[in-house]
Amino acid sequence: MPLIRIDLVEGRRSAEQVTHLLDTLHAEMVAAFGVPERDRYQIVHEHPRHRLVVQDTGLGIERTDDVVVVSVTSRPRDREQKEAFYAGLAKALERECELRPEDLVVSITVNSDEDWSFGHGRAQFLTGEL
Amino acid sequence: MPLIRIDLVEGRRSAEQVTHLLDTLHAEMVAAFGVPERDRYQIVHEHPRHRLVVQDTGLGIERTDDVVVVSVTSRPRDREQKEAFYAGLAKALERECELRPEDLVVSITVNSDEDWSFGHGRAQFLTGEL
Amino acid sequence: MPLIRIDLVEGRRSAEQVTHLLDTLHAEMVAAFGVPERDRYQIVHEHPRHRLVVQDTGLGIERTDDVVVVSVTSRPRDREQKEAFYAGLAKALERECELRPEDLVVSITVNSDEDWSFGHGRAQFLTGEL
Repeated sequence: MPLIRIDLVEGRRSAEQVTHLLDTLHAEMVAAFGVPERDRYQIVHEHPRHRLVVQDTGLGIERTDDVVVVSVTSRPRDREQKEAFYAGLAKALERECELRPEDLVVSITVNSDEDWSFGHGRAQFLTGEL
Repeated sequence: MPLIRIDLVEGRRSAEQVTHLLDTLHAEMVAAFGVPERDRYQIVHEHPRHRLVVQDTGLGIERTDDVVVVSVTSRPRDREQKEAFYAGLAKALERECELRPEDLVVSITVNSDEDWSFGHGRAQFLTGEL
Repeated sequence: MPLIRIDLVEGRRSAEQVTHLLDTLHAEMVAAFGVPERDRYQIVHEHPRHRLVVQDTGLGIERTDDVVVVSVTSRPRDREQKEAFYAGLAKALERECELRPEDLVVSITVNSDEDWSFGHGRAQFLTGEL
């Protein structure tokens, strides 16, 4: 279920590299949130450089054009799960995709069981299918 | 008010077909949530195929490139209204747009009255205008 | 922290005009929500005209193709801060960018401290860094 939007600067990655980034992101989501392997919903938006503004809230974090903004919509998760996701994702993207941990921003929005329909017009968290 | 993002694979539908899909989606929103006829805010994002990953959470739902992901932001709605929306939308899109009910994913995020301004810099749910 | 998506009709503004719009939006965010100057996360999506449908909920507001839809994700804010943001933003965009106040729609979604990681895989609102 988590529905994830990934915002990137265009022209920085090949199709293969974007796919590898999505695969890595998904593996970390499975590990941190314990979702099923096929619980994968990812949408990539690529933008001209000046259409994606990412500063640092005064934290002294330097960004590059490789910056990745990950926006997650999910049912409620524990604080520990969220922190594990942030940490695991930064580590995995650095290892797998050579992404600097400075270039990763994550934001989560929470909804609930009744807010999802995965197909057939049914709310599978309510019907007992999930 | 519901603000709706619709994510599609590019090159699968003509402009007319997308418009018909949006019209159908809006009619179902009006029917299920009881919003005014002109309470319509829709944003379409089209993506290269490999930039939109939609699996099935292990439900055994087969997707095609016609898949439609509908992300709704709305004031709170009853569970019954949401279920009516999912069911009605799947049925209407199949009938009107030949969309397989397997190719429809819906996610809802809830906000509140004070979270909307429809123009003029005013929060119309608070001012009594709505 | 507020993460802001800005949806526009394509071909209506130069790169400079979009940048000026983003600068103006950010200044109003700083003023209304009291966020740090570098607490700036903005993503612009531009759309073909018929992919962005913005009506008026029956309020009698006339839109043009200059319409701007602002979707904010933020930690909780007071109602007064939100109303100040709507009003200040409409005024500033009219003054700075010649945007008609009728052409501004704003929606806010709320999340919490644990829902943000600004880099390094850490949740800076939890670690004490922010």
